Amino acid sequence: MELSIQKIEALIRLSTIVMLVLTACLIGLDSQTKVIFYVQKKASFKDLRALVGLLYITSLAAAYNLLQLCCSSFSASYKGTSLQSYAYLAWLRYILDQAVVYAVFAGNLAALEHSFLVLTGEENFQWLKWCNKYTRFCTQIGGSLLCGFVASLLMFSIASISAFNLFRLYSPTKFMHLKL
Amino acid sequence: MELSIQKIEALIRLSTIVMLVLTACLIGLDSQTKVIFYVQKKASFKDLRALVGLLYITSLAAAYNLLQLCCSSFSASYKGTSLQSYAYLAWLRYILDQAVVYAVFAGNLAALEHSFLVLTGEENFQWLKWCNKYTRFCTQIGGSLLCGFVASLLMFSIASISAFNLFRLYSPTKFMHLKL
Repeated sequence: MELSIQKIEALIRLSTIVMLVLTACLIGLDSQTKVIFYVQKKASFKDLRALVGLLYITSLAAAYNLLQLCCSSFSASYKGTSLQSYAYLAWLRYILDQAVVYAVFAGNLAALEHSFLVLTGEENFQWLKWCNKYTRFCTQIGGSLLCGFVASLLMFSIASISAFNLFRLYSPTKFMHLKL
Repeated sequence: MELSIQKIEALIRLSTIVMLVLTACLIGLDSQTKVIFYVQKKASFKDLRALVGLLYITSLAAAYNLLQLCCSSFSASYKGTSLQSYAYLAWLRYILDQAVVYAVFAGNLAALEHSFLVLTGEENFQWLKWCNKYTRFCTQIGGSLLCGFVASLLMFSIASISAFNLFRLYSPTKFMHLKL
């Protein structure tokens, strides 16, 4: 049964990588040129700081997951190593996984908020809306954000699995005692 | 030792509630009136959708933590009840805590992103910056966001404790087996 949770984790990590790469590609390849008032203007993801940030975050998260996928074959089971060193490894994975899921979630959310403002404008601040002019551009961003949120959800389940793998090493009655 | 982690959790929850209430108050009481071009204009948190959202989220999160603090005295230890029903309770707490920490984090981040745009403006979209006009208003928002992020950090440690409380009930070798 130990193998089964390993396989589930590997499967989720693989689909996460696919989703993250898809998000990054959809953002990175998004640009639209349009003539507005006889002037040719171009909208690209570089105009929105939050999208540039999301591109970096998703690329790094995909690389991290790939690394974890490669490493997991080395630490597949703690039967070979001592329990103490396995616990250190599990702590490391727990903290890294948590950090990455929060980073991906944060990047997506910032991009969503920014895009939402572009979509609706803000009358109080006299900010104009732009999506009625760059429709295809905005639709593609919407698709990439959807992929990004699916990736966040997958990463959340990975973080839960790594928490499970870590904390089940501890005693249910004594505080912070490893059970042997 | 079982009591000690309960006390730590209660202490963290209390300080989280203080931080969340502080955030909500700083946002809710923030408004500034200024004369611009002979017209009296008022900036309040209601102008930024993300701040209104953050106000609701922090209030709800504070209420949730207060409820958990009250309930925790009933489920202080699983020695009285059966392990199975204690595990169900631990799952419930784990899922609720995770949901609340992500909600608070998301609310803060959306507000930060929105405020950042107000601070810097966006030249590509011809969006004006407003913080040079409403300085005190913006400083207060900055303070509330800082409190909000401290609260998120505290809530993250609570979520880790509830994960610890849940997953240490499970066997380290058999998948999803409670240990008795």
